[in-house]
Amino acid sequence: MVGPEQMIAAVEAYIDGFAREDASAVADLFANDAVVEDPVGGEVQRGRAAFAQFFAGTVGSGAKLTLDGPIRLGPDYAAFPFHVDLTWDGQPMRIDVIDVFHFDAFGKIRHMQAFFGESNFVPATKEA
Amino acid sequence: MVGPEQMIAAVEAYIDGFAREDASAVADLFANDAVVEDPVGGEVQRGRAAFAQFFAGTVGSGAKLTLDGPIRLGPDYAAFPFHVDLTWDGQPMRIDVIDVFHFDAFGKIRHMQAFFGESNFVPATKEA
Repeated sequence: MVGPEQMIAAVEAYIDGFAREDASAVADLFANDAVVEDPVGGEVQRGRAAFAQFFAGTVGSGAKLTLDGPIRLGPDYAAFPFHVDLTWDGQPMRIDVIDVFHFDAFGKIRHMQAFFGESNFVPATKEA
Repeated sequence: MVGPEQMIAAVEAYIDGFAREDASAVADLFANDAVVEDPVGGEVQRGRAAFAQFFAGTVGSGAKLTLDGPIRLGPDYAAFPFHVDLTWDGQPMRIDVIDVFHFDAFGKIRHMQAFFGESNFVPATKEA
């Protein structure tokens, strides 16, 4: 059974992996057969080969993540609001996102869902 | 297909239903065969009889909801961070929650998930 400290550490390591642009560290937080929906409603990444390539692209884009409130913790999940700062078509942009991580018994993320859509893309200079 | 304005209106009506303590108005936002997980990991309410009774209890408790950031909108969902102010064992308490509403084609909520756990209960006087 995964514990709260382990789930909080995984969320922090995920954010830190983007800060350090370490896509391998991000991918290592996931179970080999994990399913990644980022965003939910878009293409689904299934298994390490798919999500490792996906994170190489997103982490490599230089996007930075900032938590915007408490991490909500259930028996085997963490849900958290955050925003992404990134450059989009040469402009500083902000994306407001909610992620949900479901964990396996070993503390690896088995299912990740990122909730956001085009209305959540705003110029970074504007308060969201 | 449900539109963004319709999903935002449903979130606002949900919050407003608690403010007015109108459990019927809250239940009417849901499809007859909707599934309600509140919290995710707890008992699942399936169908109108179950979730109407559930909302009669939660809305009737006097809990008030306040949005804590932008609503994240996908093709058929709204996800949003908020907190609940309520009285628990005679003490003013705050619960930090993330809700995800998945909508059907008619704009009714077909699946609701509320993400929170005991670590998200804090005394209302303390900043979360």
